[in-house]
Amino acid sequence: MTSSLSQSVKVLAFDVFGTVVDWHGSIVDEMRHVAPGVDGHAFATAWRAGYKPAMAKVMSGEQGWTLIDDLHWQILQTLVQPFGLSHLDEAQLRHLNKVWHRLQAWPDSVGGLMKLKRHFIITPLSNGNLGLLTHMAKRAGLPWDCVLSAEVFKAYKPDPATYLGVAKVFDLQPHEVMLVAAHHDDLEGARRCGLRTAYVERPWEFSRTEAKDVSPQPGNDLHVRDFFELAQVLVGEG
Amino acid sequence: MTSSLSQSVKVLAFDVFGTVVDWHGSIVDEMRHVAPGVDGHAFATAWRAGYKPAMAKVMSGEQGWTLIDDLHWQILQTLVQPFGLSHLDEAQLRHLNKVWHRLQAWPDSVGGLMKLKRHFIITPLSNGNLGLLTHMAKRAGLPWDCVLSAEVFKAYKPDPATYLGVAKVFDLQPHEVMLVAAHHDDLEGARRCGLRTAYVERPWEFSRTEAKDVSPQPGNDLHVRDFFELAQVLVGEG
Repeated sequence: MTSSLSQSVKVLAFDVFGTVVDWHGSIVDEMRHVAPGVDGHAFATAWRAGYKPAMAKVMSGEQGWTLIDDLHWQILQTLVQPFGLSHLDEAQLRHLNKVWHRLQAWPDSVGGLMKLKRHFIITPLSNGNLGLLTHMAKRAGLPWDCVLSAEVFKAYKPDPATYLGVAKVFDLQPHEVMLVAAHHDDLEGARRCGLRTAYVERPWEFSRTEAKDVSPQPGNDLHVRDFFELAQVLVGEG
Repeated sequence: MTSSLSQSVKVLAFDVFGTVVDWHGSIVDEMRHVAPGVDGHAFATAWRAGYKPAMAKVMSGEQGWTLIDDLHWQILQTLVQPFGLSHLDEAQLRHLNKVWHRLQAWPDSVGGLMKLKRHFIITPLSNGNLGLLTHMAKRAGLPWDCVLSAEVFKAYKPDPATYLGVAKVFDLQPHEVMLVAAHHDDLEGARRCGLRTAYVERPWEFSRTEAKDVSPQPGNDLHVRDFFELAQVLVGEG
Protein backbone atom coordinates (compact mmCIF):
# COMPACT_ATOMS: atom_id res chain seq x y z
CA MET A 1 0.00 0.00 0.00
CA THR A 2 2.56 2.53 1.12
CA SER A 3 5.11 1.64 -1.52
CA SER A 4 2.42 1.72 -4.20
CA LEU A 5 1.46 5.16 -2.88
CA SER A 6 5.03 6.39 -3.12
CA GLN A 7 5.13 5.22 -6.72
CA SER A 8 1.82 6.63 -7.89
CA VAL A 9 1.97 9.95 -6.06
CA LYS A 10 4.06 12.57 -7.86
CA VAL A 11 3.12 15.75 -6.02
CA LEU A 12 2.65 16.43 -2.32
CA ALA A 13 0.50 19.50 -1.70
CA PHE A 14 0.60 20.88 1.83
CA ASP A 15 -1.93 22.84 3.76
CA VAL A 16 0.12 25.53 5.50
CA PHE A 17 -1.53 27.33 8.46
CA GLY A 18 -1.41 24.81 11.31
CA THR A 19 0.05 22.04 9.15
CA VAL A 20 3.46 23.49 8.23
CA VAL A 21 3.58 26.53 10.52
CA ASP A 22 2.40 27.29 14.05
CA TRP A 23 0.05 30.25 13.54
CA HIS A 24 -1.23 30.23 17.12
CA GLY A 25 2.12 30.14 18.91
CA SER A 26 3.65 32.66 16.48
CA ILE A 27 0.88 35.17 17.09
CA VAL A 28 1.07 34.67 20.85
CA ASP A 29 4.83 35.40 20.67
CA GLU A 30 4.26 38.48 18.51
CA MET A 31 1.62 39.87 20.88
CA ARG A 32 3.96 39.49 23.84
CA HIS A 33 6.12 42.16 22.19
CA VAL A 34 3.47 44.28 20.49
CA ALA A 35 0.86 44.44 23.27
CA PRO A 36 2.12 42.71 26.42
CA GLY A 37 -1.08 43.30 28.36
CA VAL A 38 -3.30 41.53 25.83
CA ASP A 39 -4.32 37.86 26.15
CA GLY A 40 -2.37 36.55 23.14
CA HIS A 41 -4.14 33.20 23.15
CA ALA A 42 -7.61 34.80 23.04
CA PHE A 43 -6.45 37.30 20.42
CA ALA A 44 -4.94 34.65 18.11
CA THR A 45 -8.04 32.51 18.47
CA ALA A 46 -10.37 35.41 17.69
CA TRP A 47 -8.33 36.46 14.64
CA ARG A 48 -8.31 32.95 13.25
CA ALA A 49 -12.03 32.50 14.02
CA GLY A 50 -12.85 35.30 11.58
CA TYR A 51 -11.02 33.52 8.77
CA LYS A 52 -13.55 30.95 7.56
CA PRO A 53 -16.55 33.33 7.66
CA ALA A 54 -14.50 35.88 5.69
CA MET A 55 -13.61 33.32 3.00
CA ALA A 56 -17.21 32.11 2.92
CA LYS A 57 -18.35 35.66 2.05
CA VAL A 58 -15.94 35.67 -0.89
CA MET A 59 -16.96 32.23 -2.10
CA SER A 60 -20.68 33.08 -1.85
CA GLY A 61 -20.10 36.14 -4.01
CA GLU A 62 -21.14 38.54 -1.25
CA GLN A 63 -17.63 39.99 -1.49
CA GLY A 64 -15.46 40.02 -4.64
CA TRP A 65 -12.20 38.07 -4.85
CA THR A 66 -10.10 39.19 -1.88
CA LEU A 67 -6.63 38.07 -0.80
CA ILE A 68 -6.06 36.62 2.66
CA ASP A 69 -3.83 39.59 3.53
CA ASP A 70 -6.86 41.81 3.05
CA LEU A 71 -9.24 39.45 4.85
CA HIS A 72 -6.81 39.34 7.78
CA TRP A 73 -6.78 43.15 7.74
CA GLN A 74 -10.58 43.36 7.75
CA ILE A 75 -10.79 40.97 10.71
CA LEU A 76 -7.97 42.69 12.59
CA GLN A 77 -9.80 46.00 12.43
CA THR A 78 -12.77 44.45 14.25
CA LEU A 79 -10.42 43.27 17.04
CA VAL A 80 -8.73 46.61 17.78
CA GLN A 81 -11.41 47.88 20.13
CA PRO A 82 -12.34 44.64 21.97
CA PHE A 83 -8.68 43.77 22.57
CA GLY A 84 -7.62 47.29 23.53
CA LEU A 85 -5.19 47.85 20.65
CA SER A 86 -6.15 51.47 19.96
CA HIS A 87 -2.68 52.63 21.02
CA LEU A 88 -1.27 51.05 17.84
CA ASP A 89 -1.13 53.39 14.84
CA GLU A 90 -1.94 52.27 11.31
CA ALA A 91 1.69 51.42 10.44
CA GLN A 92 1.94 49.25 13.55
CA LEU A 93 -1.33 47.51 12.77
CA ARG A 94 -0.22 46.93 9.15
CA HIS A 95 2.97 45.38 10.50
CA LEU A 96 0.98 43.22 12.90
CA ASN A 97 -1.23 42.09 10.02
CA LYS A 98 1.87 40.72 8.32
CA VAL A 99 2.62 38.44 11.26
CA TRP A 100 1.00 35.82 9.01
CA HIS A 101 4.02 36.24 6.69
CA ARG A 102 6.32 35.58 9.64
CA LEU A 103 4.78 32.43 11.12
CA GLN A 104 7.27 29.94 12.53
CA ALA A 105 7.54 26.44 11.12
CA TRP A 106 6.88 23.41 13.33
CA PRO A 107 10.23 21.87 14.37
CA ASP A 108 10.01 18.98 11.87
CA SER A 109 8.72 20.99 8.88
CA VAL A 110 11.94 22.08 7.16
CA GLY A 111 13.82 18.81 7.74
CA GLY A 112 10.85 16.68 6.71
CA LEU A 113 10.21 18.73 3.57
CA MET A 114 13.86 18.43 2.56
CA LYS A 115 13.58 14.64 2.67
CA LEU A 116 10.26 14.56 0.82
CA LYS A 117 11.55 16.97 -1.83
CA ARG A 118 14.06 14.35 -2.99
CA HIS A 119 11.22 12.10 -4.09
CA PHE A 120 8.25 14.34 -4.83
CA ILE A 121 7.36 17.77 -6.08
CA ILE A 122 6.42 19.63 -2.90
CA THR A 123 4.15 22.66 -2.98
CA PRO A 124 1.95 24.52 -0.57
CA LEU A 125 -1.75 24.49 -1.36
CA SER A 126 -2.91 27.20 0.97
CA ASN A 127 -5.62 29.79 1.12
CA GLY A 128 -2.82 32.23 1.96
CA ASN A 129 -1.86 34.53 -0.90
CA LEU A 130 1.28 34.15 -3.01
CA GLY A 131 3.15 37.05 -1.44
CA LEU A 132 2.39 35.80 2.07
CA LEU A 133 3.48 32.25 1.27
CA THR A 134 6.66 33.40 -0.48
CA HIS A 135 7.73 35.67 2.37
CA MET A 136 6.96 32.92 4.87
CA ALA A 137 8.94 30.32 2.94
CA LYS A 138 11.95 32.61 2.53
CA ARG A 139 12.00 33.49 6.20
CA ALA A 140 11.33 30.00 7.57
CA GLY A 141 13.44 28.16 4.98
CA LEU A 142 10.59 26.08 3.56
CA PRO A 143 12.11 24.45 0.45
CA TRP A 144 9.05 24.44 -1.84
CA ASP A 145 9.51 23.50 -5.49
CA CYS A 146 6.89 26.12 -6.36
CA VAL A 147 4.23 28.12 -4.54
CA LEU A 148 0.58 27.33 -5.28
CA SER A 149 -2.21 29.18 -3.55
CA ALA A 150 -5.91 29.85 -3.70
CA GLU A 151 -4.79 33.06 -5.43
CA VAL A 152 -3.72 31.05 -8.49
CA PHE A 153 -7.08 29.27 -8.74
CA LYS A 154 -9.21 32.23 -7.61
CA ALA A 155 -11.05 29.92 -5.21
CA TYR A 156 -10.63 29.03 -1.56
CA LYS A 157 -10.31 25.50 -0.23
CA PRO A 158 -12.35 23.34 0.06
CA ASP A 159 -13.52 24.43 -3.43
CA PRO A 160 -12.71 21.58 -5.88
CA ALA A 161 -11.00 24.10 -8.20
CA THR A 162 -8.10 24.23 -5.76
CA TYR A 163 -7.42 20.49 -5.39
CA LEU A 164 -8.06 19.73 -9.05
CA GLY A 165 -6.07 22.81 -9.95
CA VAL A 166 -2.90 21.26 -8.54
CA ALA A 167 -3.39 18.11 -10.63
CA LYS A 168 -4.00 20.25 -13.71
CA VAL A 169 -0.91 22.39 -13.18
CA PHE A 170 1.20 19.23 -13.29
CA ASP A 171 -0.85 17.46 -15.97
CA LEU A 172 -1.61 14.62 -13.53
CA GLN A 173 -4.61 12.56 -12.52
CA PRO A 174 -6.06 13.54 -9.10
CA HIS A 175 -4.83 10.28 -7.49
CA GLU A 176 -1.27 11.25 -8.37
CA VAL A 177 -1.52 14.21 -5.97
CA MET A 178 -1.58 13.84 -2.17
CA LEU A 179 -2.85 16.53 0.16
CA VAL A 180 -1.07 16.71 3.51
CA ALA A 181 -3.07 18.55 6.16
CA ALA A 182 -3.86 18.72 9.86
CA HIS A 183 -7.55 19.42 9.19
CA HIS A 184 -10.16 16.82 8.37
CA ASP A 185 -12.44 19.16 6.39
CA ASP A 186 -9.57 20.04 4.07
CA LEU A 187 -8.67 16.37 3.60
CA GLU A 188 -12.29 15.50 2.95
CA GLY A 189 -12.47 18.15 0.23
CA ALA A 190 -9.37 16.69 -1.41
CA ARG A 191 -10.66 13.12 -1.13
CA ARG A 192 -13.92 14.06 -2.85
CA CYS A 193 -11.84 15.22 -5.81
CA GLY A 194 -9.93 11.95 -5.95
CA LEU A 195 -6.69 13.09 -4.34
CA ARG A 196 -4.76 10.92 -1.90
CA THR A 197 -4.70 12.28 1.65
CA ALA A 198 -2.36 12.25 4.65
CA TYR A 199 -3.44 13.55 8.04
CA VAL A 200 -0.66 15.00 10.15
CA GLU A 201 -1.09 15.38 13.90
CA ARG A 202 -0.55 18.92 15.12
CA PRO A 203 -1.81 18.64 18.70
CA TRP A 204 -0.65 22.15 19.69
CA GLU A 205 -2.26 23.99 16.80
CA PHE A 206 -4.82 25.86 18.90
CA SER A 207 -3.03 26.14 22.22
CA ARG A 208 0.39 25.50 23.73
CA THR A 209 -1.17 23.96 26.82
CA GLU A 210 -4.23 22.08 25.65
CA ALA A 211 -3.79 19.47 22.92
CA LYS A 212 -6.45 19.08 20.25
CA ASP A 213 -7.93 15.69 19.38
CA VAL A 214 -5.65 14.08 16.81
CA SER A 215 -7.09 10.58 16.92
CA PRO A 216 -7.31 8.85 13.53
CA GLN A 217 -10.43 9.28 11.45
CA PRO A 218 -11.41 6.97 8.62
CA GLY A 219 -10.86 7.78 4.99
CA ASN A 220 -7.28 9.03 4.83
CA ASP A 221 -4.56 7.06 3.10
CA LEU A 222 -2.07 7.97 5.81
CA HIS A 223 -2.09 9.22 9.40
CA VAL A 224 1.29 10.45 10.62
CA ARG A 225 2.71 12.21 13.64
CA ASP A 226 4.86 14.68 11.68
CA PHE A 227 6.72 15.22 8.40
CA PHE A 228 9.59 12.93 9.41
CA GLU A 229 7.13 10.10 9.87
CA LEU A 230 5.56 10.99 6.52
CA ALA A 231 8.98 10.67 4.84
CA GLN A 232 9.62 7.44 6.69
CA VAL A 233 6.29 5.93 5.64
CA LEU A 234 6.43 7.13 2.03
CA VAL A 235 10.06 6.62 1.15
CA GLY A 236 11.68 4.87 4.08
CA GLU A 237 13.51 7.90 5.40
CA GLY A 238 12.87 8.92 8.99
CA MET B 1 22.51 54.77 -8.75
CA THR B 2 23.34 51.12 -8.36
CA SER B 3 23.26 51.19 -4.57
CA SER B 4 19.97 53.11 -4.63
CA LEU B 5 18.66 50.43 -7.03
CA SER B 6 19.68 47.67 -4.67
CA GLN B 7 17.81 49.43 -1.88
CA SER B 8 14.60 50.21 -3.72
CA VAL B 9 14.27 46.95 -5.65
CA LYS B 10 12.73 44.14 -3.59
CA VAL B 11 11.91 41.56 -6.25
CA LEU B 12 13.94 40.36 -9.25
CA ALA B 13 11.71 38.75 -11.87
CA PHE B 14 13.53 36.74 -14.53
CA ASP B 15 12.61 35.94 -18.06
CA VAL B 16 13.49 32.25 -18.43
CA PHE B 17 13.80 30.91 -22.02
CA GLY B 18 17.13 32.25 -23.25
CA THR B 19 17.78 34.34 -20.14
CA VAL B 20 18.12 31.62 -17.47
CA VAL B 21 18.23 28.50 -19.64
CA ASP B 22 19.71 27.64 -23.02
CA TRP B 23 16.68 26.51 -25.01
CA HIS B 24 18.54 26.33 -28.31
CA GLY B 25 21.51 24.26 -27.17
CA SER B 26 19.31 21.99 -25.05
CA ILE B 27 17.05 21.16 -27.98
CA VAL B 28 20.05 20.59 -30.26
CA ASP B 29 21.44 18.13 -27.68
CA GLU B 30 18.09 16.35 -27.34
CA MET B 31 17.70 15.98 -31.11
CA ARG B 32 21.14 14.42 -31.39
CA HIS B 33 19.72 11.51 -29.37
CA VAL B 34 16.11 11.49 -30.58
CA ALA B 35 16.66 12.02 -34.30
CA PRO B 36 20.38 12.07 -35.16
CA GLY B 37 19.80 12.73 -38.85
CA VAL B 38 17.84 15.94 -38.28
CA ASP B 39 19.38 19.42 -38.33
CA GLY B 40 18.93 20.23 -34.64
CA HIS B 41 19.76 23.90 -35.12
CA ALA B 42 17.12 24.36 -37.81
CA PHE B 43 14.60 22.32 -35.83
CA ALA B 44 15.09 24.30 -32.60
CA THR B 45 14.88 27.55 -34.51
CA ALA B 46 11.67 26.52 -36.26
CA TRP B 47 10.04 25.33 -33.04
CA ARG B 48 10.86 28.57 -31.27
CA ALA B 49 9.74 30.63 -34.28
CA GLY B 50 6.22 29.30 -33.84
CA TYR B 51 6.09 30.53 -30.26
CA LYS B 52 5.27 34.21 -30.60
CA PRO B 53 2.61 33.76 -33.32
CA ALA B 54 0.98 31.06 -31.15
CA MET B 55 0.85 33.37 -28.13
CA ALA B 56 -0.41 36.21 -30.29
CA LYS B 57 -3.38 34.06 -31.33
CA VAL B 58 -4.23 33.52 -27.66
CA MET B 59 -3.85 37.17 -26.74
CA SER B 60 -5.98 38.30 -29.71
CA GLY B 61 -8.75 36.00 -28.57
CA GLU B 62 -8.56 33.87 -31.73
CA GLN B 63 -7.69 30.93 -29.45
CA GLY B 64 -8.82 30.57 -25.82
CA TRP B 65 -6.32 30.57 -22.95
CA THR B 66 -3.76 27.87 -23.76
CA LEU B 67 -0.70 26.79 -21.81
CA ILE B 68 2.74 26.89 -23.41
CA ASP B 69 2.98 23.09 -23.13
CA ASP B 70 -0.03 22.90 -25.44
CA LEU B 71 1.23 25.63 -27.77
CA HIS B 72 4.57 23.80 -28.04
CA TRP B 73 2.62 20.64 -28.87
CA GLN B 74 0.61 22.38 -31.58
CA ILE B 75 3.77 23.78 -33.16
CA LEU B 76 5.63 20.48 -32.86
CA GLN B 77 2.92 18.70 -34.82
CA THR B 78 3.48 21.05 -37.74
CA LEU B 79 7.20 20.18 -37.71
CA VAL B 80 6.88 16.38 -37.81
CA GLN B 81 6.51 16.13 -41.56
CA PRO B 82 8.96 18.85 -42.71
CA PHE B 83 11.70 17.57 -40.35
CA GLY B 84 11.09 13.89 -41.09
CA LEU B 85 10.04 12.88 -37.57
CA SER B 86 7.23 10.52 -38.61
CA HIS B 87 9.15 7.56 -37.16
CA LEU B 88 8.43 8.90 -33.68
CA ASP B 89 5.22 7.60 -32.11
CA GLU B 90 2.92 9.78 -30.03
CA ALA B 91 4.58 8.87 -26.71
CA GLN B 92 7.98 9.79 -28.12
CA LEU B 93 6.66 13.07 -29.48
CA ARG B 94 5.00 13.86 -26.13
CA HIS B 95 8.33 13.20 -24.44
CA LEU B 96 10.10 15.43 -26.95
CA ASN B 97 7.55 18.17 -26.29
CA LYS B 98 8.62 18.13 -22.65
CA VAL B 99 12.21 18.94 -23.59
CA TRP B 100 11.15 22.47 -22.60
CA HIS B 101 10.85 21.13 -19.02
CA ARG B 102 14.41 19.82 -19.24
CA LEU B 103 16.27 22.85 -20.58
CA GLN B 104 19.78 23.32 -19.24
CA ALA B 105 20.71 26.43 -17.26
CA TRP B 106 23.44 28.75 -18.51
CA PRO B 107 26.65 28.08 -16.52
CA ASP B 108 26.26 31.17 -14.29
CA SER B 109 22.51 30.86 -13.65
CA VAL B 110 22.37 28.74 -10.49
CA GLY B 111 25.38 30.35 -8.81
CA GLY B 112 24.26 33.87 -9.69
CA LEU B 113 20.70 33.24 -8.50
CA MET B 114 21.98 31.87 -5.18
CA LYS B 115 23.85 35.13 -4.55
CA LEU B 116 20.92 37.30 -5.61
CA LYS B 117 18.49 35.28 -3.49
CA ARG B 118 20.27 36.45 -0.33
CA HIS B 119 19.21 40.02 -1.04
CA PHE B 120 16.06 39.84 -3.15
CA ILE B 121 13.00 37.75 -3.73
CA ILE B 122 13.80 35.93 -6.98
CA THR B 123 11.06 34.59 -9.21
CA PRO B 124 10.69 33.60 -12.82
CA LEU B 125 8.27 35.70 -14.86
CA SER B 126 7.95 33.48 -17.87
CA ASN B 127 5.38 32.68 -20.47
CA GLY B 128 6.12 29.04 -19.65
CA ASN B 129 3.44 27.32 -17.59
CA LEU B 130 3.76 26.55 -13.89
CA GLY B 131 4.33 22.81 -14.33
CA LEU B 132 7.03 23.40 -16.93
CA LEU B 133 8.83 25.99 -14.80
CA THR B 134 8.63 23.84 -11.68
CA HIS B 135 9.99 20.74 -13.38
CA MET B 136 12.75 22.81 -14.97
CA ALA B 137 13.72 24.42 -11.66
CA LYS B 138 13.80 21.10 -9.81
CA ARG B 139 15.94 19.48 -12.47
CA ALA B 140 18.33 22.38 -13.05
CA GLY B 141 18.53 23.46 -9.39
CA LEU B 142 17.15 26.96 -9.94
CA PRO B 143 16.57 28.26 -6.40
CA TRP B 144 13.44 30.37 -6.99
CA ASP B 145 11.59 31.77 -3.98
CA CYS B 146 8.34 31.13 -5.82
CA VAL B 147 7.25 30.40 -9.38
CA LEU B 148 5.29 33.07 -11.24
CA SER B 149 4.15 32.54 -14.79
CA ALA B 150 1.82 33.90 -17.43
CA GLU B 151 -0.44 31.09 -16.22
CA VAL B 152 -1.01 32.94 -12.93
CA PHE B 153 -1.98 36.17 -14.69
CA LYS B 154 -3.76 34.56 -17.64
CA ALA B 155 -1.84 36.82 -20.00
CA TYR B 156 1.35 36.49 -21.97
CA LYS B 157 4.24 38.93 -21.84
CA PRO B 158 4.49 41.69 -22.94
CA ASP B 159 0.94 42.20 -21.65
CA PRO B 160 1.09 44.72 -18.76
CA ALA B 161 -0.95 42.32 -16.58
CA THR B 162 2.15 40.15 -16.24
CA TYR B 163 4.64 42.84 -15.14
CA LEU B 164 2.15 44.65 -12.93
CA GLY B 165 0.96 41.30 -11.65
CA VAL B 166 4.35 40.64 -10.04
CA ALA B 167 4.23 43.99 -8.22
CA LYS B 168 0.69 43.26 -7.07
CA VAL B 169 1.54 39.78 -5.76
CA PHE B 170 4.13 41.36 -3.49
CA ASP B 171 2.12 44.50 -2.68
CA LEU B 172 4.87 46.65 -4.20
CA GLN B 173 5.12 49.65 -6.49
CA PRO B 174 6.28 48.78 -10.04
CA HIS B 175 9.69 50.48 -9.51
CA GLU B 176 10.37 48.06 -6.65
CA VAL B 177 10.41 45.17 -9.15
CA MET B 178 13.21 44.62 -11.69
CA LEU B 179 12.84 42.48 -14.78
CA VAL B 180 15.98 40.64 -15.85
CA ALA B 181 15.88 39.50 -19.46
CA ALA B 182 17.98 38.91 -22.56
CA HIS B 183 15.29 40.35 -24.84
CA HIS B 184 14.72 44.03 -25.51
CA ASP B 185 11.02 43.71 -26.30
CA ASP B 186 10.38 42.08 -22.92
CA LEU B 187 12.38 44.76 -21.11
CA GLU B 188 10.53 47.47 -23.00
CA GLY B 189 7.19 46.01 -21.90
CA ALA B 190 8.36 46.04 -18.30
CA ARG B 191 9.71 49.59 -18.56
CA ARG B 192 6.40 50.86 -19.87
CA CYS B 193 4.79 49.54 -16.69
CA GLY B 194 7.33 51.33 -14.50
CA LEU B 195 9.51 48.35 -13.61
CA ARG B 196 13.28 48.58 -13.40
CA THR B 197 15.09 46.59 -16.07
CA ALA B 198 18.37 44.72 -16.47
CA TYR B 199 19.55 43.39 -19.82
CA VAL B 200 21.69 40.28 -19.64
CA GLU B 201 23.90 39.30 -22.57
CA ARG B 202 23.23 35.81 -23.85
CA PRO B 203 25.23 35.84 -27.08
CA TRP B 204 24.74 32.12 -27.77
CA GLU B 205 20.95 32.08 -27.37
CA PHE B 206 20.17 31.34 -31.02
CA SER B 207 23.25 29.40 -32.07
CA ARG B 208 26.36 27.87 -30.57
CA THR B 209 28.50 29.21 -33.35
CA GLU B 210 27.08 32.59 -34.26
CA ALA B 211 26.73 35.17 -31.52
CA LYS B 212 23.72 37.46 -31.48
CA ASP B 213 24.09 41.23 -31.13
CA VAL B 214 24.29 42.01 -27.43
CA SER B 215 25.41 45.61 -27.68
CA PRO B 216 23.83 47.95 -25.13
CA GLN B 217 20.58 49.67 -26.00
CA PRO B 218 19.30 52.75 -24.22
CA GLY B 219 16.61 52.65 -21.58
CA ASN B 220 17.67 49.85 -19.27
CA ASP B 221 18.83 50.51 -15.74
CA LEU B 222 21.52 47.86 -16.06
CA HIS B 223 23.39 45.98 -18.78
CA VAL B 224 25.32 42.95 -17.53
CA ARG B 225 27.26 40.05 -18.99
CA ASP B 226 25.72 37.39 -16.75
CA PHE B 227 24.08 36.77 -13.36
CA PHE B 228 27.40 36.97 -11.51
CA GLU B 229 27.92 40.45 -12.86
CA LEU B 230 24.33 41.30 -11.92
CA ALA B 231 25.04 40.23 -8.32
CA GLN B 232 28.30 42.15 -8.36
CA VAL B 233 26.67 45.33 -9.62
CA LEU B 234 23.61 45.12 -7.38
CA VAL B 235 25.08 43.93 -4.12
CA GLY B 236 28.83 43.86 -4.54
CA GLU B 237 29.15 40.08 -4.86
CA GLY B 238 30.85 38.74 -7.95
